Formats: sequence, C-alpha cells, structure tokens
Amino acid sequence: MSKTQIVAAPGKQEIVMTRDFDAPRELVYRVLTDPELRPQWWGPSYLTTTVETMDVREGGTWRFIQRDPEGNEFAFRGVYHVVDAPSQVVETFEFEGLPERHVVLETANLVEHDGVTTLTQTSVFQSVADRDGMVASGMEKGALESMERAAELLASLHVNS
Amino acid sequence: MSKTQIVAAPGKQEIVMTRDFDAPRELVYRVLTDPELRPQWWGPSYLTTTVETMDVREGGTWRFIQRDPEGNEFAFRGVYHVVDAPSQVVETFEFEGLPERHVVLETANLVEHDGVTTLTQTSVFQSVADRDGMVASGMEKGALESMERAAELLASLHVNS
Repeated sequence: MSKTQIVAAPGKQEIVMTRDFDAPRELVYRVLTDPELRPQWWGPSYLTTTVETMDVREGGTWRFIQRDPEGNEFAFRGVYHVVDAPSQVVETFEFEGLPERHVVLETANLVEHDGVTTLTQTSVFQSVADRDGMVASGMEKGALESMERAAELLASLHVNS
Repeated sequence: MSKTQIVAAPGKQEIVMTRDFDAPRELVYRVLTDPELRPQWWGPSYLTTTVETMDVREGGTWRFIQRDPEGNEFAFRGVYHVVDAPSQVVETFEFEGLPERHVVLETANLVEHDGVTTLTQTSVFQSVADRDGMVASGMEKGALESMERAAELLASLHVNS
C-alpha cells in the first residue's frame, strides 16, 4: 500500500495530496463525510477535534474546533459546493485564526480499483503566497498524520463491516 | 477612468480582472449583490439573465439563468463563502453546461480612493486546464461587456442617489 504523497509545485497556487486506502470507496466516502467519524482521524492526534457543524449538502456549512492539551482552540470552517457521493466533495476551507480571511477551494475525488480506493485532494489557494503560507505552517505533518489515522480507522471499520 | 484589465498569466490557474468605477464603494457593492440589479449588467446584453436564487450570506446559494434570442438556456450556480459588506465577497462559480463539474473560487475585493472604487476579481480554477478552458470559451468578451454595463448602471444610480 503506497503512503500519502503531497505535492506543492513551485510557483503554483495548489497542493495536491494523494493516498491509497485498502477499503471500498463507499467506506472511504463515509469516513470523509460522517460527523461522528471525523473527530477520529482529522488532524494530529494530540489535538481533540469537535465538530460544531457538518451539514454535508450543497450550500451546507461546516465548522470544526481543535483544542490542544493547554486548552488553546483553533477553529476551521467552510461551505460545501459539490456533494456527489461516493465520488466527489468540493468545499471551501478557512482557518479562522488568520488576521485576514483566506479561503481555500478543496476538491476530494475518490476512485476505486480492485478494492483499493485512491483519494486525490486538490487544495487551490487565492494566491501563490497563500499556498506558500500554508506549506510554511507545517500543514504537511498534520495532513500526513490525518491520512495515517484515516487508514487505521478504515482498517477497523472494514474488518467490522 | 481606466477600463477593465483581465490578466490570465501563462501556466497559472487564475484570472485576475480589475476595473475602476466612478462611484462610492457602497454603491458598487450594492450593484454586485442586489438580485434586482444583477440582471441589468451581468453577461452580454443580447442574453437575458434571470436570478433564480441569490441568497447573499455565508452558505447561501445562487443560481442564474441566461437565455439567448433562440430560447437556449445557460445556467450558472454557486455558494457564498465570505460576505463582508462593502469590501469583499468570496463565492464559488460553476457553469452547469459542462459534462463534468468544474468549480471556480471567485474573490471580489472593493477598495475606494478619492471617490473611485476599484473592483479586483480573482477567479481561481481547480487546474490550469480549467483556467485555459475558460479563457478559450471567450469569457473575456462577456466579462468586458458586463463591466461596461455595470459602469453604465452605476452612473445612472449615482446620478439618482
């Protein structure tokens, strides 16, 4: 099973992340879109994630809050644009902790071959500077850990399903 | 008064349009966000535009239908992400006539200096190919005409306000 690949090509305003999961597409889609499952894999494990809103339909909004052991809070939000189960979700993404508003357009595509589902997530930024700022923030480490946690969750769900 | 500038730099996945309007920012914002005014300037004048939905709030959706003299219909839709009157609107944009779904993230910023309001609209695409497809579709001509019509509408509103 290949691991997560994250590509942020110089001068581009996107980050492309790819990951294969040893699970059927419907199950991967459920892990991505189920408010009960999201806190079990999203973000680094030392943070707890609370789903405040997760209304997975076109025009629906989402808002998640992460808390660290010291009680600091980090809030994220977005709006769903495309909800096409089990193959695609297009949504906006925003970290509320920035002094100005910066919105990211995220496209998650799911394709299944021979029981393996490939997630390709493309994050497009309002500028190259925004993209570079996200890379500099250390998002890669958090994203890699999220994908590992999602794979572990999928393995347990797959066995039990 | 400078005219509309449209920049689509090679290899980038964005289009940046800039236009100065001889009108206060509040009025330009109103022209952009008022469902009654939108059909009066949006798109080429040989098409009639009908606003089916235009719910200008975060998570609100919009859907416009354009009809040509032969009765052909072209539908567009999106979701509002940021609604920050009178300085910024961030929304998604989609043309429903494409065989696959392609979503654009559009950011409109309004800045006023000495009674002149500058609109900067940045359209970010899911890929360079998507951006190039939009340019090839002839969007520039329609965008330039929309900006001319908006300027004319603003002039009439400004005189009457």
